[in-house]
Amino acid sequence: MSLVTFLTDFGAADYFVGAMKGALLSVCQRATIVDLTHEIAPFDIEAGAFALLATYTTFPAGTIHVAVVDPGVGSSRRALVMSAGGQFFVAPDNGLLSWIAEREAGNARFFHATNAKYFRATMSQTFHGRDVFAPLAGALANDVAPQEFGEEINEIVRLPALSPERIDANVLRGRVIHVDRFGNLVTNVRREDLPTDFAACASLQVSEIPINSFHQCFAEAAPEEIFAYWGSAGFLEIGVANDSAARRLAAGRGAIIQVNLAES
Amino acid sequence: MSLVTFLTDFGAADYFVGAMKGALLSVCQRATIVDLTHEIAPFDIEAGAFALLATYTTFPAGTIHVAVVDPGVGSSRRALVMSAGGQFFVAPDNGLLSWIAEREAGNARFFHATNAKYFRATMSQTFHGRDVFAPLAGALANDVAPQEFGEEINEIVRLPALSPERIDANVLRGRVIHVDRFGNLVTNVRREDLPTDFAACASLQVSEIPINSFHQCFAEAAPEEIFAYWGSAGFLEIGVANDSAARRLAAGRGAIIQVNLAES
Amino acid sequence: MSLVTFLTDFGAADYFVGAMKGALLSVCQRATIVDLTHEIAPFDIEAGAFALLATYTTFPAGTIHVAVVDPGVGSSRRALVMSAGGQFFVAPDNGLLSWIAEREAGNARFFHATNAKYFRATMSQTFHGRDVFAPLAGALANDVAPQEFGEEINEIVRLPALSPERIDANVLRGRVIHVDRFGNLVTNVRREDLPTDFAACASLQVSEIPINSFHQCFAEAAPEEIFAYWGSAGFLEIGVANDSAARRLAAGRGAIIQVNLAES
Repeated sequence: MSLVTFLTDFGAADYFVGAMKGALLSVCQRATIVDLTHEIAPFDIEAGAFALLATYTTFPAGTIHVAVVDPGVGSSRRALVMSAGGQFFVAPDNGLLSWIAEREAGNARFFHATNAKYFRATMSQTFHGRDVFAPLAGALANDVAPQEFGEEINEIVRLPALSPERIDANVLRGRVIHVDRFGNLVTNVRREDLPTDFAACASLQVSEIPINSFHQCFAEAAPEEIFAYWGSAGFLEIGVANDSAARRLAAGRGAIIQVNLAES
Repeated sequence: MSLVTFLTDFGAADYFVGAMKGALLSVCQRATIVDLTHEIAPFDIEAGAFALLATYTTFPAGTIHVAVVDPGVGSSRRALVMSAGGQFFVAPDNGLLSWIAEREAGNARFFHATNAKYFRATMSQTFHGRDVFAPLAGALANDVAPQEFGEEINEIVRLPALSPERIDANVLRGRVIHVDRFGNLVTNVRREDLPTDFAACASLQVSEIPINSFHQCFAEAAPEEIFAYWGSAGFLEIGVANDSAARRLAAGRGAIIQVNLAES
Repeated sequence: MSLVTFLTDFGAADYFVGAMKGALLSVCQRATIVDLTHEIAPFDIEAGAFALLATYTTFPAGTIHVAVVDPGVGSSRRALVMSAGGQFFVAPDNGLLSWIAEREAGNARFFHATNAKYFRATMSQTFHGRDVFAPLAGALANDVAPQEFGEEINEIVRLPALSPERIDANVLRGRVIHVDRFGNLVTNVRREDLPTDFAACASLQVSEIPINSFHQCFAEAAPEEIFAYWGSAGFLEIGVANDSAARRLAAGRGAIIQVNLAES
């Protein structure tokens, strides 16, 4: 097994991605590289955390994910290897993996990678993607156990929790955690947070604007209609057919979502 | 054989491409993924159709191409598997494959994929790239015959035909079907539509502006000179050395090309 | 061994990259393709030369690098195959490989590829990435020796030398050779050009603006502080934490760097 994915904020235009790939292949030449994305906005840890969260479950057991959004490179932030859900994750310990850790709670183990034997021979202080994270992934691809990299640790740096907040028995407060390419608003509200028949028993506000429609898919919606639907990443989303809900609602990441259940 | 290409309008920044790759590899882990492009403009079926048309013949026999530009996801549009030219194509039935079907006429077979056994276990209504098309490609890579996916069908949804129109014995009317990164105008006029010695016996207008030069390559052209040449995708193109013909001629996709043959 | 990297100025949106990949795989289907970048600015040979220079040493021995930034396609510029540093390089002879040749001086061999047996059967005059360079890489991946492609040559087209200029015993004049995604200025000054303890014995000017700080990494710098550091590609760089040095110093590629050694 030697499937290795890359997710970074390095952009496609610079030499960083190529250098990481070379560093991995120099450790494990038979590794198969899969680019998830390199277009996470620079230093945007939450965006990286969301993209990996929305992707990893589609991959087969044993896949190794390398995620590098690393504003603290060269500081004392830890290099982290996590095993969770039958897969491996290599990243700086800055929250990038915390939503997967939250979802896989009880099933995730964390290792603080300190064993320089598994780093690149010539180390920089500014490019740990190439010098630390890619070589660690190469070692995992070579079947090195994560215990070899350093001490197992109990806790990692966490982003604000992914779960929505229950205000009272009938009110859930969530937030927009991602705006996708098409302008759809992805919230942190999951199916299990809501009654089965959402459309029948709930109402919804985004930034205090009521959303009155719920559909299964875009093809069901009328032109211009703003509606909620269960998105493909398992979260409640807000969209508009052939337009951007983000623009129409002037809402972006962090916008407050209020769900009122069993309203009268 | 397990070479699988991807062409989508998902962009490189979002999680969609990564999720499709995972879904494919979960079905066929030894598949080799080749990214054609993910930067087709959102919902631009013609642009996707052109890019795949201009690419597929370079691939070896047995290659599986997955193309997803899918504004009708969740509607009743069909999921299509096509075998043509010794290769396989998986896409929504919305015209995306129609220019390849036109070129491979008599040599293309179409299957309406309905057998949910080959779809992802948990299906969304909004992301068939991950839940339908990538798993179908995985099944093809595992040597499942396209007949297994569903009924063979006779016809598919077609874009406006690729061939230019013959106005009379001496006049051919075509159109610009693509503007490339460098601003060159790719027309739908092919070598076989014209006499062998094009430069000697034809004249050309783009949006009614005459183009009086024909060259083999850019190196032959004078600075600023607008000229026609046989482009690498097999079509007549209009270019300007070190400049954009699209900008110079204020012409884009759909602009009318008139070719006058054997003029006196 | 069949690891093949691609670096081009074709962009990710067009059909060019996909067609090159198909052309390679049609010659050597088991080749593993690694995308370095396709976002070199159109025709920017120096940018391509830098990106490849900063990347190739991370790859394992035997890797085959295909680089296509080719404003002279169709002219008499030569197709070049270079062996250097245990790796292979395929590119137009326009300077794209010259900085690697400079670094690997005495260790690089050049071949003028003229043997059409190793080109694509149907050749265009405008797309040698697909018709010449990718097939040559496929042949190398099939273990064809570079001597088979054509005559060994002594010299290639060179960009301005990579090394900084020594003005007098204490003054070195270099230049900015790259501005990265984050706005950091990469200079052509290397560690071996300077005394070991750079911070203690040198001062620096960029476009005549003095840079008074030197740090190991961004985490060491104060907010807004402009500082020099050894970058990950082995060159002296100028950066600002959380900002763009290029913008702050109004400096770009070609800006003059003056290093004063042992100043009093």
